This record gives sequence, C-alpha cells and structure tokens, in this order.
Amino acid sequence: MRQLPREKIMYFGDTARTPYGPRPAEEVARFTRQIVEYLIQYRPKMIVVACNTATAVALEDIRSRVAIPVVGVIHPGARAANGRTQTGIVGVIGTDGTIRSGAYEHALKQLSPNIEVISLACPRFVPLVEQGNFRSQETKEVVESSLAPLQNRSIDTLILGCTHYPFLSETIAEAMGNHVALISSADETAREISTILHDRNRLTREGELPVHQFFCSGDPRMFRIIAQQWLGEQIELTPVVWQVPNIV
Amino acid sequence: MRQLPREKIMYFGDTARTPYGPRPAEEVARFTRQIVEYLIQYRPKMIVVACNTATAVALEDIRSRVAIPVVGVIHPGARAANGRTQTGIVGVIGTDGTIRSGAYEHALKQLSPNIEVISLACPRFVPLVEQGNFRSQETKEVVESSLAPLQNRSIDTLILGCTHYPFLSETIAEAMGNHVALISSADETAREISTILHDRNRLTREGELPVHQFFCSGDPRMFRIIAQQWLGEQIELTPVVWQVPNIV
Repeated sequence: MRQLPREKIMYFGDTARTPYGPRPAEEVARFTRQIVEYLIQYRPKMIVVACNTATAVALEDIRSRVAIPVVGVIHPGARAANGRTQTGIVGVIGTDGTIRSGAYEHALKQLSPNIEVISLACPRFVPLVEQGNFRSQETKEVVESSLAPLQNRSIDTLILGCTHYPFLSETIAEAMGNHVALISSADETAREISTILHDRNRLTREGELPVHQFFCSGDPRMFRIIAQQWLGEQIELTPVVWQVPNIV
Repeated sequence: MRQLPREKIMYFGDTARTPYGPRPAEEVARFTRQIVEYLIQYRPKMIVVACNTATAVALEDIRSRVAIPVVGVIHPGARAANGRTQTGIVGVIGTDGTIRSGAYEHALKQLSPNIEVISLACPRFVPLVEQGNFRSQETKEVVESSLAPLQNRSIDTLILGCTHYPFLSETIAEAMGNHVALISSADETAREISTILHDRNRLTREGELPVHQFFCSGDPRMFRIIAQQWLGEQIELTPVVWQVPNIV
C-alpha cells in the first residue's frame, strides 16, 4: 500500500487454516490453488503469493495454471540478500516447510553459484508472534537459543523467510549483532511487483486512489480488528473484510 | 557483475564525448541512439542505459526503437526512494541535464502522488570525481555548499542521481547527516535487471561464468587502467577493451 498507493489490493487471509508452516507440501499447494481460483474470478492483473511456505511449495504450480504474472516472496528476498552480502555467506530462517523445500538455497545458488547458504527452521517463532509476544524475556530467550546455530558462521545477511518474522526483527537483530543485515521479504516483494508492473506497462498511473478489499476464510471479526490496528494509523481506510467460509 | 554473475556484460563507455551532463538533450539522445545501434548488432537480450542524463532524455526514444527490454537508472532509483522514505520528502541531486528534465520528479509522482520531491543540480560534483578527488578539504567544502539548499527540508532519502556521485557518498553522507538514507541508482538498477530477466524467464541459470567485453570511444589505455583498478580486486578478470572510434 505504501509503495504502490495507486494499485488496488484484494487480500485473502486463510485464517481458518493457519498456520501453513507445519503442513505437508501437498496440502499447502492444494490450499493455495483454492485461493487463487477464488481470487482469479475478480480478474486481477497479478497474483502475489505473500507467504513463504506457499511460495516454496506452490509457486511453479500456480504459474503454470494462470496467464497473469505470479510473484512469490522467495526470489525477491534472495535477490536482495544476493545484492547485500559482502562475505557471500547468507543465512535463511523460516518455517519447517520453507526450509525443508530448499527454495531459498536454490534461488540464491541460481543467482550466484558461489554463494554459501546456511538455513535454519525456527518453528517456535510463529506462535510467539501469533500471541503478540514480540519483546518479552521469553521471546528473547527463544530467539537467542533458536539462532545459536547461525552464530560465528560469517553470515552478514539474514533472510527473514517467513511473513511473521519481521515482528521479531528487533529481537533477532539484537541476537545476531549489528554486522548482520536483516532482509524482509515483504518490502522486497513490493519493490519487485512495482518493477514487473512497470516493465509490463501495467502500473496504474492516474485516477482516484483505490479502496482495497480483504477476504478471510475464518471469523472476520478478529481479522477486522487486527487489520484496523495495523493499517488504520498509516492510511485512511476502513478495511472491508468478507468472510469466504465455503472455500475450506 | 556481483549481483548477476552469470550474465555476460557488453559495456560501452563513450569516453571521447564525456561528460553528458551539460550537453543539450537532443545531442545526448543522438549519442545514445548511436551507441544502442552499435551494441544491438551483438544481439543482447536487454539494454541498460546506465547513465542518468541519457536515461532522462533518451529512454523512451530507445524503447520505441528496439524490441528487447530497455532499462534506465531513474525508475529503479525512484522506486527505491519511494520504498524507503518515511517522511514522504525525497531529495534528488544530479547533473543539469537530469534535473532540468524533471525525470525523477515525474517517476516519483507517478509511483506516489503525495510524495514531495526537492531537486538540485550539482554541476561541480562530476569534475571532482573525474579528478579522483573524493575526500579532500576542497571536496568537503564543495559538497557542503552545494547541498546547503537541501538542509532543514525534512528530507529523509536522497537519490544520488548521477553515476559519479556514489564516489562522493561518504562526504555527502557527512553533509546530510545520519537520518538521510542515500540511494545509489546503480545497485537498484542491477536489482531491477535481475527481477525483469527473472519475470521474463531470461535469466541465465547455468553454464560457465561469462567473459565480459568493454568498448570505449576514446583512448582505451586509460580506460583499461581504470577498469582494472575498479574490477581487478573483486573479480578475476582482465578487461577486454576495444576502441570504437568510428562511432563518433
């Protein structure tokens, strides 16, 4: 919204089936297909798979099924890390599903064959974020012990390979130290969407600013409260949230 | 080279006719057309106009003449600044030609209609860089007095809108202060090239690492010395430099 204020966003949050991280790949791929089938009826000009786990296991499948550009969050994060690292040693943290897929390692090696990638699943992070537990002593201890295997490995760039992790970025930064740059896939993906729409001459260049739409598969009340908390201060917007229960 | 190590680069430096900054727009556009006509015979998969002045006055013309993607340095810098700014007030410094064109302001306003852009031509910077005069007392004074009009304007992001300016980035950063993020178009453009080639499924994904080629319109001896100084430490490469005098 901040980087592409002229573009209308139709956001689908699969709140009834979260979290995706621990689910088998085939199940995540099936859920992702269902959501894309739902959204495609609105004739979007682009699909963004804004979840690392779904990107890791379903991106190529979705790409083969629709005629519009499909962007995931893994290549943008990999590209940013590749541009940033000086030591050539990049860390990646993510859910079990994302790390097991090897998707970041594959994307980074494709860009730079000599890059070294150290991957680590951090399954305890998502529950902390879901509880809103960003800065407690417990969080600090979980983050420090989880990241211990990445210490003293000459990493200078760490990819936060899960949409939840940027909420822990201060604690992660303290644990890793000043010399490690943290890459948030969200910011990088928004940049790439802008680049791709520009290259394809599909950027919206004029007209009224859009009203976004939000869909969720679970109870819309909590979704609406959180969306207003997150978005209300920065932009004037009352999120329109529709429940789509029949997708599940 | 660092961000796209698998891609072969054919670089043309118009050393016989540098600098472009003070030249009339029509002349810069004509020179740019000549260079593209020369390079296109090698059947590149993409053209990068790696000069702000040439991008500002010739990008759309070149785009209309060739069938491959043509990327300039202005939109990548504008996009990065738009993603970075929190105050919504962005500074742009460049040559007379770039600032006069209003190209950065146009690109930024297209992305974000409410962004405020403060542009400033810094014609004294390029001669300092050409003399290798990056950190002297004279440079410090020229940079400080040139940038004075940007002080106290709530700028939090400054686009270095000329390929030469990153050589002065330490001095510019000291003059602007810690709270101002400097955007180098070069890094951002390399990122966008990677994104666009990936989206178009044109990234090179395997094979031997490439040998780059360098062309220049003037004396190749000085070009060769400088290229080896800049590139020699980071990558194992003896630049192959060809003079193309008949282009002028």
